[in-house]
Amino acid sequence: MEERTELSEVGEFGLIKKIEEAVKISLSSTIKGIGDDAAVLDPENKKLLISSDMLNEGVHFDLSYTPLKHLGYKAAIVNFSDILAMNAYPSQITVSLGLSNRFSLEAVDEIYEGILKACDLYNVDLVGGDTTSTLSGLVISITVVGYQEKDKIVYRDGAKEGDLICVSGDLGSAYMGLQILEREKQIFKEDPRVQPDLSNNDYILERQLKPEARKDIVRELETRGVLPTSMIDVSDGLVSELFHIADKSKVGATIYADKIPIDAQTANRADEFQLAPETVALNGGEDYELLFTIKQADYAKVRDWKQIAIIGHITDEAESVKMVSQTGSIINLKAQGWDAFLNKERKSDSK
Amino acid sequence: MEERTELSEVGEFGLIKKIEEAVKISLSSTIKGIGDDAAVLDPENKKLLISSDMLNEGVHFDLSYTPLKHLGYKAAIVNFSDILAMNAYPSQITVSLGLSNRFSLEAVDEIYEGILKACDLYNVDLVGGDTTSTLSGLVISITVVGYQEKDKIVYRDGAKEGDLICVSGDLGSAYMGLQILEREKQIFKEDPRVQPDLSNNDYILERQLKPEARKDIVRELETRGVLPTSMIDVSDGLVSELFHIADKSKVGATIYADKIPIDAQTANRADEFQLAPETVALNGGEDYELLFTIKQADYAKVRDWKQIAIIGHITDEAESVKMVSQTGSIINLKAQGWDAFLNKERKSDSK
Repeated sequence: MEERTELSEVGEFGLIKKIEEAVKISLSSTIKGIGDDAAVLDPENKKLLISSDMLNEGVHFDLSYTPLKHLGYKAAIVNFSDILAMNAYPSQITVSLGLSNRFSLEAVDEIYEGILKACDLYNVDLVGGDTTSTLSGLVISITVVGYQEKDKIVYRDGAKEGDLICVSGDLGSAYMGLQILEREKQIFKEDPRVQPDLSNNDYILERQLKPEARKDIVRELETRGVLPTSMIDVSDGLVSELFHIADKSKVGATIYADKIPIDAQTANRADEFQLAPETVALNGGEDYELLFTIKQADYAKVRDWKQIAIIGHITDEAESVKMVSQTGSIINLKAQGWDAFLNKERKSDSK
Repeated sequence: MEERTELSEVGEFGLIKKIEEAVKISLSSTIKGIGDDAAVLDPENKKLLISSDMLNEGVHFDLSYTPLKHLGYKAAIVNFSDILAMNAYPSQITVSLGLSNRFSLEAVDEIYEGILKACDLYNVDLVGGDTTSTLSGLVISITVVGYQEKDKIVYRDGAKEGDLICVSGDLGSAYMGLQILEREKQIFKEDPRVQPDLSNNDYILERQLKPEARKDIVRELETRGVLPTSMIDVSDGLVSELFHIADKSKVGATIYADKIPIDAQTANRADEFQLAPETVALNGGEDYELLFTIKQADYAKVRDWKQIAIIGHITDEAESVKMVSQTGSIINLKAQGWDAFLNKERKSDSK
């Protein structure tokens, strides 16, 4: 039988002490972690990047198929990705957890295990936060900081006409992973005797449940001596992010359908679900890939780079955001993506 | 009739845009606020202080008697207080809001109005965050940062035997304000025709609903040339905070009951509720006053300072935390205060 310790048995201070003991500080930029009114950090003469993300049960995750450890891992990754998207590395996080009495001490341990695993792999220190109760549901609110020299920070607003549009990895896989999980949940609900069939979906399930942030891409950009003109992470879907870059940079963008990187497993599952793979890749979201623009002069530096795809180029603002289809027709894209207040992923109607 | 706009009508991006427009940047340390993957801040060669606090509906606040604007104000103040408690000034915050569909756009506006009012008064920039939905209830998660020179940062662990224990303002008033609000709520529940009687409680109600953080105290310490040896803000109750300082500094503490600052309104209401005013002041919580220790050599610098009370002195670790009562008897204090997982304020059993 599994052990279950009520949070009220250890209390808030007991829990904070337990977390404090589990956490190790490894960065020279962390002067003081958990254990005072605030953590003390050393920006080491760089500028500071800071970003916050909140994940709510039933909206951003479904505990019926999300292991708590993976959830903790993902919550950290999502935040790391925001700092990487500024061309900087995440260094410290604070974690605020809101837990209903449904959750045991063991459950909290699992969430922190996932968070600390991500911290360990990405070289990030957990330096503070808050642990408190809710009337119902689980809330994970993380703030991440990183440091970078002023002239190496990359914003959304620097794209210029003629720049090449690049994206790392592949798109749409996390979305298809979610479809598989939702389908199996539905089947299980209708007949609990049926075991979920998750076979042959390893890649897309991992993309949904345990995504990675592209620290390797930021590193490789540095190695290749490429400073993007603009950058954003793909959390709400490629089209949505393209619109952010276009809006902020006051430019247009044209991408080519046949250049969009889609994994074979994603494409196969999309077919099964009678979705166009392209639509899934355009609007899926939760990819945590990096979308960035580079000067044409930097093309030679990235030409042989297998981890990225060049999917289009920046145009004049009046051109807005367009896609050239496989057959050569031009489609005006519309920002869709995920909207927390609509609580659903809207299918593209651009096709 | 009041206007009501559903959040789903404006959507997440619409809401972010609205917030972005309402927010003004006023500090030179804010390079880039809302509108990118992360905010960019300039620590201006100082060290960075960072702290996060989460407030959950039904646990930390009750919307049946808490105006949303005050709630926003208080959520910001609670965070500012953590940076002030390190002997630094809050400079920027990120705000993550989780809202159920019970909340309208107008409600969100009110919360932000309160937050921005606090930012304005304390000279803090709102630079980012997240706005998302919950299945039920309201969650406000704020992260605050500030900057300070390394040798001016005051921790909890610097108190030394013989140091004087000081506290700003008065204690227990926010707790008594809460008792009044809870009493009137109860009466209203039993008979909705009865109008709540909140008269003659202005001070304690304001302390509960719209507290202030003691920026003036940190400033005055600087003016008087006093660097505390340790400091903490009184959020969970005086005794609880004394234990934190004692634990971290590896010292004991003795305070004198007759030195504890209690406002007359607090004392009168405590009497009415058949509570010892002292108990309320010791364990009440949410005072957001500053508790700090200073060297005896600094006594002359604070002697005439009306805003603070010297309530005792630091002793040897073996002495633990004690109080000398009005009659001269010695009481061993026990850490109690507010525990989020017990969901109640426990009455002192030290008397």
